[in-house]
Amino acid sequence: MEYKICLIGCGTVGQGLLEIFYKKRDWLEKHLGFKAKIVAISDKLKGNILLPEGLNIDKLLQILGRGQKIDDYLEGKVNPAASLNPLQIIEKSQADIVAELTYTDIKTAQPATNYIKKALQTGKHVVTSNKGPAALYYQDLNKLAKENNLFFRFEGTVMSGTPVFNLIENGLAANEIKGIKGILNGTTNFILTKMEEEDMDYEAALSLAQKLGYAEADPTADVEGYDALAKIVILANVLLGANLKPAEVPRKGIKGISKQMVKEALASGCRYKLIAFAGKKEGRIVARVAPEKLSLSDPLAAVMGVNNALSLDLDLLGKVTIQGPGAGKIETGYSILTDMLAIHRHLSQ
Amino acid sequence: MEYKICLIGCGTVGQGLLEIFYKKRDWLEKHLGFKAKIVAISDKLKGNILLPEGLNIDKLLQILGRGQKIDDYLEGKVNPAASLNPLQIIEKSQADIVAELTYTDIKTAQPATNYIKKALQTGKHVVTSNKGPAALYYQDLNKLAKENNLFFRFEGTVMSGTPVFNLIENGLAANEIKGIKGILNGTTNFILTKMEEEDMDYEAALSLAQKLGYAEADPTADVEGYDALAKIVILANVLLGANLKPAEVPRKGIKGISKQMVKEALASGCRYKLIAFAGKKEGRIVARVAPEKLSLSDPLAAVMGVNNALSLDLDLLGKVTIQGPGAGKIETGYSILTDMLAIHRHLSQ
Repeated sequence: MEYKICLIGCGTVGQGLLEIFYKKRDWLEKHLGFKAKIVAISDKLKGNILLPEGLNIDKLLQILGRGQKIDDYLEGKVNPAASLNPLQIIEKSQADIVAELTYTDIKTAQPATNYIKKALQTGKHVVTSNKGPAALYYQDLNKLAKENNLFFRFEGTVMSGTPVFNLIENGLAANEIKGIKGILNGTTNFILTKMEEEDMDYEAALSLAQKLGYAEADPTADVEGYDALAKIVILANVLLGANLKPAEVPRKGIKGISKQMVKEALASGCRYKLIAFAGKKEGRIVARVAPEKLSLSDPLAAVMGVNNALSLDLDLLGKVTIQGPGAGKIETGYSILTDMLAIHRHLSQ
Repeated sequence: MEYKICLIGCGTVGQGLLEIFYKKRDWLEKHLGFKAKIVAISDKLKGNILLPEGLNIDKLLQILGRGQKIDDYLEGKVNPAASLNPLQIIEKSQADIVAELTYTDIKTAQPATNYIKKALQTGKHVVTSNKGPAALYYQDLNKLAKENNLFFRFEGTVMSGTPVFNLIENGLAANEIKGIKGILNGTTNFILTKMEEEDMDYEAALSLAQKLGYAEADPTADVEGYDALAKIVILANVLLGANLKPAEVPRKGIKGISKQMVKEALASGCRYKLIAFAGKKEGRIVARVAPEKLSLSDPLAAVMGVNNALSLDLDLLGKVTIQGPGAGKIETGYSILTDMLAIHRHLSQ
C-alpha cells in the first residue's frame, strides 16, 4: 500500500525520517508492502510545497542538506503553496497521514494541537513526536481520532523510537500495568553520569552536555524536569487511564544534586537518577518527577549516559524494563516510521 | 472471535495459561474480542479429553489443582479419548490453535516436532514454548506453516513471556539486527549473583538454586549452557536468517567460574555473566555461549538474579535492551497467550 504523507515541520526529525525512507525504501516495499509518497511539506523556516505526484526524496534531501529552502525543489517555477499556512497545507494536501513534527510547547501545546485537529477533521491519520498535544490533550485528540476512524499515534513522544506504546499494545497486551518508572530524559542522565564517572560538579557536567549538543543553551526544560514531566503525564494518561495535567504533577529537577551527594550515595550502594513515576495510590493515579536514590541492583540504576529506560510493573509478567535511545535524528525519525508501520499493519491485514 | 484450542501437554505452562484464561476471560473478550474454548487436552501423565463444546476452565483448574486426572472431568462417563495418542488427539480435535507444551528434548526435538507437524498438516496454527522444535527445525516448520497459511509462533522459547519476537515484529520493524547478546538462562545468572552478593562458592549457590526450584536435580542443561545455546540458536536462525545447528555452536558453561574470579572481576569494574551471542562475522552468522566479563556499565551487567535480558544491536536505533522474567508458570503461560493474541490480531483485522 502507498501512503501519501504530509510533513508539518521538516527539521531534525523530519530529515531523519526522510533519510530512513531513502535508505530503506526498497526494503519497506518488498518486505512490508509499505510505500511512502511525500505529497506536502510545511516548515516555518524552510517554506512549503504541495506536490500530489510526490517528491523525489533524494532530490529533497540534497536541497535540505545544502540548507536551501524547500521552494528550491521547484527550480524557479511558481510555487502556489508558498503563501499557504500549515492548516491550509494540511487541508489541501490530500495526504493519508500527517506527520506533525513541530517543536514542543509544553505550556500551550500549540500550534501543534490545531494542526493535529485539522488533520483528523479532514480525514488524515496523525503521527507525532511532539510532546505538547499528547501531554495536554490526549483524551480529546484520541476521541476525535476514534470518531473519525483514524489513528493518532505518538511513539516518539517518549524515548524517541525505542518501543513503548508499540511494545505495550503488542508484546504486553492483556497485562495490567500497575506502575511505571522511568529515566525519560537523556540530558539529566548524562549530567548525573558525568558527575559520578568523571567527578565533575553539576555546572561542569551541564557545560559538557551543552557543548555536545545534549542540552540547550537554556537547559531549564531538561534539568528542572519539565521534559520528563511531559512524558510521564503522557504515559499515565495513555497507559493508566489517568487524566492528569502537567501542572498538577509534583516535579523536581536535578539542580540540587551535588557531587558530594553522588559520592555518598555510591558509597552506600546507591545511585541518583531523575525518576519519572506513575502508579496507583488509594484508587487514584499519581505521578511525580524527582531525583531518587536507586539501589545499584535496580535495572534503572544501570542506565548510564544519554540512554533512557522504562520499567513496567505488570500483573502477569512482573517487572519488564526496556532501555534504548531517548533522542537523536534517526532514532526519532524512526519513531515516526514505526507508527506509520503500525497504521499500515492495521489497514493492510 | 472464538478460538478452539487443543493443549498438548498440561503441566506448569498449560496450567499457567489456564489460570490466565480464568482470570482475564472477560477482559480479553471485552477489550480484544478474543475468546478461547479449550476443546482438547492430551497429557502423558494426566490423560486425554476431547470435548467439542469446550471445557469449563474453572472445573478443569479445580481438577488439576487437586492432582486428579483430566479423565475425572467426565465424572465417570466413558472417555472415548482415553486411549488416543497425542497425534490422534490433534487430528480429531478440530482445534484452530494447538498449544504444544511438552518438555524440551534438545537432542531430538521429539515427540514435539511430530506433534507440530501434525497440527500444521491438519490446518491448525501452532504456538509453543518448547525449545526443541524451534532450535532444530525452525526452517522446516516455518515453511510448512507458510505453505498451509498458518502461524507457527514460539515467543515462550526465549525469555518466557517477555516480548522478544513480538517486540521485534512490531516495535522494531524495519531495523536491521546486526547483533544479539543476551542473558538467557536465569538459573546460571542466579548462581553467579549469589556467588557475588553472598560470597558463596559455586557448589553452595547451585544447591541454593536447586532448593528454590530454579535448578533441576541434574543441572547440566543450565550450568553447561545447553539451555542458553538452544535459545541463541533460535534467535540466530529466526532473526538473523542463519541455519545453525546447536551442535555447531561453541558452548561453555559456568562451572569453571570460581568465587575468586568473581571477586577479581568486580575489583576491576567487571562482572561475569553467561552470555549468549549471535552476530555477523566475515559475512557469516556466528553464535556462541560462554561466560564473559562485562563492564559494569554494560546494560547486561546489571541483570541480577533469575532475570533474563536481551540486547539488540540495530542499524536505526543502536542498542535496545529488554529485561524481564525468563521463566515461571504465569510468565510462560502468558507467552502462549501473547502468541495467540498475535494470531488473533492478524486474523481479525
